[in-house]
Amino acid sequence: MAAARATLPLFVPSPTPQLRTFSPFSLSARRAGSARVAASLRLGDVIEAQQFDRDALTEIFEVAREMEAVERGSHVARSRVLEGYLMATLFYEPSTRTRLSFEAAMRRLGGEVLTTENAREFSSAAKGETLEDTIRTVEGYSDIIVLRHFESGAASRAADTANIPVINAGDGPGQHPTQALLDVYTIKREIGALDGIKLGLVGDLANGRTVRSLAYLIAKYQNIKIYFVSPNVVKMKDDIKEYLTSQGVEWEESSDLLEVASKCDVIYQTRIQKERFGERVDLYEAARGKYIVDKKVLDVLPKHAVIMHPLPRLDEITVDVDSDPRAAYFRQAKNGLYIRMALLKLLLVGR
Amino acid sequence: MAAARATLPLFVPSPTPQLRTFSPFSLSARRAGSARVAASLRLGDVIEAQQFDRDALTEIFEVAREMEAVERGSHVARSRVLEGYLMATLFYEPSTRTRLSFEAAMRRLGGEVLTTENAREFSSAAKGETLEDTIRTVEGYSDIIVLRHFESGAASRAADTANIPVINAGDGPGQHPTQALLDVYTIKREIGALDGIKLGLVGDLANGRTVRSLAYLIAKYQNIKIYFVSPNVVKMKDDIKEYLTSQGVEWEESSDLLEVASKCDVIYQTRIQKERFGERVDLYEAARGKYIVDKKVLDVLPKHAVIMHPLPRLDEITVDVDSDPRAAYFRQAKNGLYIRMALLKLLLVGR
Amino acid sequence: MAAARATLPLFVPSPTPQLRTFSPFSLSARRAGSARVAASLRLGDVIEAQQFDRDALTEIFEVAREMEAVERGSHVARSRVLEGYLMATLFYEPSTRTRLSFEAAMRRLGGEVLTTENAREFSSAAKGETLEDTIRTVEGYSDIIVLRHFESGAASRAADTANIPVINAGDGPGQHPTQALLDVYTIKREIGALDGIKLGLVGDLANGRTVRSLAYLIAKYQNIKIYFVSPNVVKMKDDIKEYLTSQGVEWEESSDLLEVASKCDVIYQTRIQKERFGERVDLYEAARGKYIVDKKVLDVLPKHAVIMHPLPRLDEITVDVDSDPRAAYFRQAKNGLYIRMALLKLLLVGR
Repeated sequence: MAAARATLPLFVPSPTPQLRTFSPFSLSARRAGSARVAASLRLGDVIEAQQFDRDALTEIFEVAREMEAVERGSHVARSRVLEGYLMATLFYEPSTRTRLSFEAAMRRLGGEVLTTENAREFSSAAKGETLEDTIRTVEGYSDIIVLRHFESGAASRAADTANIPVINAGDGPGQHPTQALLDVYTIKREIGALDGIKLGLVGDLANGRTVRSLAYLIAKYQNIKIYFVSPNVVKMKDDIKEYLTSQGVEWEESSDLLEVASKCDVIYQTRIQKERFGERVDLYEAARGKYIVDKKVLDVLPKHAVIMHPLPRLDEITVDVDSDPRAAYFRQAKNGLYIRMALLKLLLVGR
Repeated sequence: MAAARATLPLFVPSPTPQLRTFSPFSLSARRAGSARVAASLRLGDVIEAQQFDRDALTEIFEVAREMEAVERGSHVARSRVLEGYLMATLFYEPSTRTRLSFEAAMRRLGGEVLTTENAREFSSAAKGETLEDTIRTVEGYSDIIVLRHFESGAASRAADTANIPVINAGDGPGQHPTQALLDVYTIKREIGALDGIKLGLVGDLANGRTVRSLAYLIAKYQNIKIYFVSPNVVKMKDDIKEYLTSQGVEWEESSDLLEVASKCDVIYQTRIQKERFGERVDLYEAARGKYIVDKKVLDVLPKHAVIMHPLPRLDEITVDVDSDPRAAYFRQAKNGLYIRMALLKLLLVGR
Repeated sequence: MAAARATLPLFVPSPTPQLRTFSPFSLSARRAGSARVAASLRLGDVIEAQQFDRDALTEIFEVAREMEAVERGSHVARSRVLEGYLMATLFYEPSTRTRLSFEAAMRRLGGEVLTTENAREFSSAAKGETLEDTIRTVEGYSDIIVLRHFESGAASRAADTANIPVINAGDGPGQHPTQALLDVYTIKREIGALDGIKLGLVGDLANGRTVRSLAYLIAKYQNIKIYFVSPNVVKMKDDIKEYLTSQGVEWEESSDLLEVASKCDVIYQTRIQKERFGERVDLYEAARGKYIVDKKVLDVLPKHAVIMHPLPRLDEITVDVDSDPRAAYFRQAKNGLYIRMALLKLLLVGR
């Protein structure tokens, strides 16, 4: 297995000490006795964006690219590489988009799915069962667990408990690593490169975990320039700014979306989340209308550049933008399928 | 593809101008660039009962008849004709019967399913995402979308957006075309013919979309006679009556269920829906008990005739009717499986 | 088929007259006309623990043991013995653990699944449809029905209606026969025998249907000794005590968990269910803390003995017990998969 791992350096200690480290040896110890050790050792778990270094990202993106070919093939030519494997989607809060994307990924590779759409309300959790006990039961019924949870850190706890791979499909205000991966993959697919990218992050930068993870991951590449464009009440927080500076990433704040758009390769728009404003509906309304991606933005946006959005979108991108070839957000959603296909393949059978 | 279409004349302009027309050319334009154009072009979408002409109905019923043989075969002999295809059941309101019927149909043909049982509450719709945006995402994960929605016209909007086939599984007070198809198919299977049928429509004729669609579709056949038997508060509306007259269909209203039953080939009973009466529970109670199909109806019903009901049934058909061979409503429910198998096959791979 | 039944004596009249009897002849009559008679005749339905005699249990446990080998095989070697079969999980109340276990069992054998997670709220039941009508519809879409219901006796009514096999996955305060089977199977797997077992039943013995069913089934074996250890408010009821006495099973009540633990092969702990105490939270709190399985119990428990629990567990077994090899409750949960695989195989294709 050493040779296989040599070509698949997916697990390196995280750069910051408070993050979990992924040692093949500790994984090996945890999984002793499992009949399926060999396969599941190869990648381990997907818990947070920080666990991937640049080589790991390259590898995942290469497999995702192969998955595009698999998925676009005729139905008869489709891969059965995960035939006989069973994925449990254990969702403690609903997220139809993410769940369907994972389940489609599994099925496009010939695998099967067990679904719980609303585990928080329906399952033994309502009777007081711990997440750990639920995981110990569900791992007996499946080969891989995709966990969505409302508590930060839940995915890490699940991975510590399970003897089968765990993928974090979002744990509260914490991590959503597959979203971060599909965002970076989309930039690479749309622009053709990651080094040298100029990226405008727009909207709610304080609360959106997607923009925070994206800023974190893109910092692994060279010559990155990031523009933050947001209402004052939802500005990017200092921890990310300091991290970017420490990694040699140039960044600046701007209140002029048109000027930023004219200089960027990627405009990443996000939704202002009403629920973050509590009773201050006036602040929400002001923030919400401030930076809209519309035809005027398209007029100044370079021809090769793209508009991205993690979806769902309200009116922060006007509908008339959709027909422009630079509107990449539905292609971005589709890339989530390829990234998840790639991760499932890597976790269950290796490259 | 022209030859294939020549034998499958499923799309003809609707007879009334306000209805959507289904031109192969506009479909062709919409689907340009899709790797699966060839297959999905053959039928397009299933949006409303009006889209089918008599030849199309004949074709669908022939395939449905073939599906009976497929489904009744031993499990080893079952068809894998939709292997590798993925159907998304996107239900914005729950309808267990319809959903299970579609999902069983897909699986009986070897296909796979993505399910959302309560999209309205669970999905991004709750955050304000438009149906169009949801469709654009879900079409990236699947090969066909079965949509149940609470708004009239939703299925048509979805079909206009999607580059994959859409089947309307009921959109609010609007259309439920697969129910209409299975009703007509059941008459053909039970009675052996559609021309010359005498049909008694009983119960809530004002609000029931099934009786309205059935009246519409059966008008495509020759020498049809329809009897309307309903409490005064839920009488058949004038638009359908006028349409029937314009198509040369004889119809009359009657308040004598026994007399109608003695003359009919089919008695189609429906549920009086309490929710339509608001606070007038007295009117509901009066309407509800007025026309019951019971042993007395069976006594006068011709030997070859049948009782139908779209289900669920409360007490408008008494339970002691169930054991009579002329009670066709559970066979009717089963025919829903065959009709949906036929439509999925036609939409995804053609005849 | 007589020869096949001779080696599979799964149905014998229940020992008590008020219980349903399972005659192959009445089943045969019910299923006349079905294309799949031969297979489904072999076992019939799984409705209550009482339907199984000792030979039937032996047979089921032998098949369950074979299922362990099937499930632990590599994914390519996995069985496709139920390929083409479709199971409907019709759950009128949520039970994620039981549902996932059945669905995993079906899929591990190559079968397919139709799911309704919350049929009570979502289905036609909300419109007043009877269970019988729902069953008549669902049996048209599937090959076997797994029913969870909130009413005692529902599974039996469903089985009387359906022309396909029905498995009771718990019907209210009534029966949960697959739980009883997996409990007895776990004792056999962990201890190596069933005759001569000393069993301590701990916790809520009044309301827990699992301990009642377990006591019932274990009485079919020789030289059984049962200790009841429970707070006074939730003591084992007289009907089971009288039944045990009539079957020659020794039993005694004890208030000393440590002494019982030192003499037993199996300690079966259960959760004190708060909802049973109504407003008497004081009684609940007293009952809840009274008998805890912790390190002190492990200290006196024989080396070969095991701790079981039907799960979910709150704090009636402390978490530090989990790492002891004698903690069998997660293996017990896994055995539920094997038992359900065995039952599905026996019901659908026979041994």
